[in-house]
Amino acid sequence: MGLLSRDIKSLGDLLVQGLGEALYAERRCARMMPMLIAKASDIQLKSELNSVLVANAACIGRLEAVFRLLDRMPKAAECPAIDGLFIGAEEINGEIDDPHVLDSAIAAALLDVGTYKTARYATLIGWLRQLGRHDAAELIQPNQAGCRRFVEALHMLTERRLNPRAGGRLEPAPRLAS
Amino acid sequence: MGLLSRDIKSLGDLLVQGLGEALYAERRCARMMPMLIAKASDIQLKSELNSVLVANAACIGRLEAVFRLLDRMPKAAECPAIDGLFIGAEEINGEIDDPHVLDSAIAAALLDVGTYKTARYATLIGWLRQLGRHDAAELIQPNQAGCRRFVEALHMLTERRLNPRAGGRLEPAPRLAS
Repeated sequence: MGLLSRDIKSLGDLLVQGLGEALYAERRCARMMPMLIAKASDIQLKSELNSVLVANAACIGRLEAVFRLLDRMPKAAECPAIDGLFIGAEEINGEIDDPHVLDSAIAAALLDVGTYKTARYATLIGWLRQLGRHDAAELIQPNQAGCRRFVEALHMLTERRLNPRAGGRLEPAPRLAS
Repeated sequence: MGLLSRDIKSLGDLLVQGLGEALYAERRCARMMPMLIAKASDIQLKSELNSVLVANAACIGRLEAVFRLLDRMPKAAECPAIDGLFIGAEEINGEIDDPHVLDSAIAAALLDVGTYKTARYATLIGWLRQLGRHDAAELIQPNQAGCRRFVEALHMLTERRLNPRAGGRLEPAPRLAS
């Protein structure tokens, strides 16, 4: 289950658990992305998500290679954090009618996911280096760089294009009682 | 439930839902932090977490003020992402015996939480600005800045102090079958 539970006796155990969770997270993203691409309307958003889907496969490959470099079988470990992050995204089921608002919502959900993965990779790379496994740290580095690039590109797209298209104004709400 | 579900007709609806989730997340952090402070051993980590606890209260206050500025009742909305992020942290129940490894694990979990909140606030501030509510964006800005500062400080503490203390080496694993 969680990062902080059971049978964790050393930083090495934390690392192996964390790598398993990262593998689970990347596979979850790869399964999720086609649905999000289908729901997105904006052509630039679709294109960004398509490149993430391609990058996902490479990330999974690098994680599996890191496991092997450490003489471990690549084994995914359930990751409640990524599950929680995707619950929102899974609920995109046509309940947002306005396609521009839906695009902004998809982008926001994926900004959370991308930012989370960037932080996770930073932690894993730190642990690998601490344990003297600079070879594995080097190998996994492009995963972090890719997540960071995705977050920057999506943030820019959101600010410059998706949010202005979703636009509108804040509707007045019933006044506070009192 | 999720950010992307039910009754979301406009960017304003997304915003109000997102503010509710942020309020839920900050309250969840405030409830969680004393347990994590009690579990932490390192004096600098404890001190960092104590300042987060103080900052949490201010963040909650600012979020409630933003709701009122927008003529809304401050209302928390369940946030599966933060719940997922904290499942790991809740499992810190003595199953990691080594206090240094436990410190690294606590710091890693909180780096995820802090990074997630930073991304969330960036999204909320973007939506507020898009909707012309620069007053509310300004008001909530210190929440984002505080989260970012916490992430930077915790990252440095982890690299320079917590991980080196947790130290050790990666134990050999059974060789891959093949």
